Amino acid sequence: MGSFTDVQALVFDVFGTVVDWRSGVAREATPFLARYAPGADPAAFADAWRRRYAPAMEEVRSGRRAFTRLDVLHLENLVATLPEFGIASAAVPSSELDALNLAWRKLDPWPDSVSGLTRLKHRFIIAPLSNGNIRLMLDLAKRAALPWDAILGAEIAEAYKPSPKAYLRNAEALMLEPENVCLVAAHNNDLAAARRCGFRTAFIPRPTEHGPNQTTDLEPEEDWDAVANDIEDLARRMEL
Amino acid sequence: MGSFTDVQALVFDVFGTVVDWRSGVAREATPFLARYAPGADPAAFADAWRRRYAPAMEEVRSGRRAFTRLDVLHLENLVATLPEFGIASAAVPSSELDALNLAWRKLDPWPDSVSGLTRLKHRFIIAPLSNGNIRLMLDLAKRAALPWDAILGAEIAEAYKPSPKAYLRNAEALMLEPENVCLVAAHNNDLAAARRCGFRTAFIPRPTEHGPNQTTDLEPEEDWDAVANDIEDLARRMEL
Repeated sequence: MGSFTDVQALVFDVFGTVVDWRSGVAREATPFLARYAPGADPAAFADAWRRRYAPAMEEVRSGRRAFTRLDVLHLENLVATLPEFGIASAAVPSSELDALNLAWRKLDPWPDSVSGLTRLKHRFIIAPLSNGNIRLMLDLAKRAALPWDAILGAEIAEAYKPSPKAYLRNAEALMLEPENVCLVAAHNNDLAAARRCGFRTAFIPRPTEHGPNQTTDLEPEEDWDAVANDIEDLARRMEL
Repeated sequence: MGSFTDVQALVFDVFGTVVDWRSGVAREATPFLARYAPGADPAAFADAWRRRYAPAMEEVRSGRRAFTRLDVLHLENLVATLPEFGIASAAVPSSELDALNLAWRKLDPWPDSVSGLTRLKHRFIIAPLSNGNIRLMLDLAKRAALPWDAILGAEIAEAYKPSPKAYLRNAEALMLEPENVCLVAAHNNDLAAARRCGFRTAFIPRPTEHGPNQTTDLEPEEDWDAVANDIEDLARRMEL
């Protein structure tokens, strides 16, 4: 962990890395599906909703669409997902869609997240660097007691990861050079983009983020500056 | 406190309202002055430095200057203040000026601030809405254990209070209508500007912000939505 002596801030991917989005979205969708699509698998619904996440952001990253906060993309993606489960979106009151969209603010942290962040906070600035918007990250943190020092992320930069601006503008908000910031993530592609911007990198696997049959991001795919089993283990390796 | 039923977020002025900038800057300046201007009064130095605060921001508010974060303005103001105390800025290494500029991150909260914020946080989103930049507010909060849910403020808006954009852009980041946000401040002019934007308003006096002979902001000058003795008292009046 020698290369961490100059690191002043740890910024975290959140969906998957800090919180378990799949179980949370499935849980929140369960009563909705029981009503509108009896028999549908809530976890499959969560997966289908999430599948539209990257393509929706790609519209913004490519410049085809102005920056639009993630809450809006999530709602559009929800409406687009409904027909896959035989639900006509016109049959659902918009207030119910808005309420279900809040599922992304009600995600439980992984068991090590709060204790690990609390330890890391003694030595580092800690903040989310998520594609989630400020209010989404704020409500998520308040409910889950994530002890962030600030809410950073895509909305500060008006750019989505893995666009370089999403990393660099947030380092700049911290008044730090990229090499003084470390991204912690369960996703190799996020870390690769951060490294290209000069960030330090820490990988922690979340082997059930996508459910029991996950095949991606089970292992580090580059020589990241740190690899740990989870956030608590990351704090331990830093002797905190 | 009836008008607070629709309030979801309390945003706070910080310098003067949550922390005691005058005592803190004077304390941090004391060793510097002992060396470069023996006999100078540290409180007078804090006042002189602070006197340049509003005019410096006015350059940005007027559009004559692009948005520039407060840390930069503070450093320029420090350099401009030195001759008033017989100090030639060229005689001071820039590293010492940079270090003294960090005084604004080392301000103590008023005795009621942390306990009051902690109580208010149970019911409301709480965040700074200061002219201080993100890193300044972050370091201040970390040192003083201010339990903010997020760091909002001028840098999010790229506009300084009392410009309307400074209030409105931050309400928008919270995804709230102005009437669902209340500004808590010890300064009548800040509250007046927030009210013109549709914010709710809460006044708490800080009668020694400017020292023992303070003559301004001792009383509420409009019928603000709430008036309390301090932040702890504000929480009490909201039955928290």
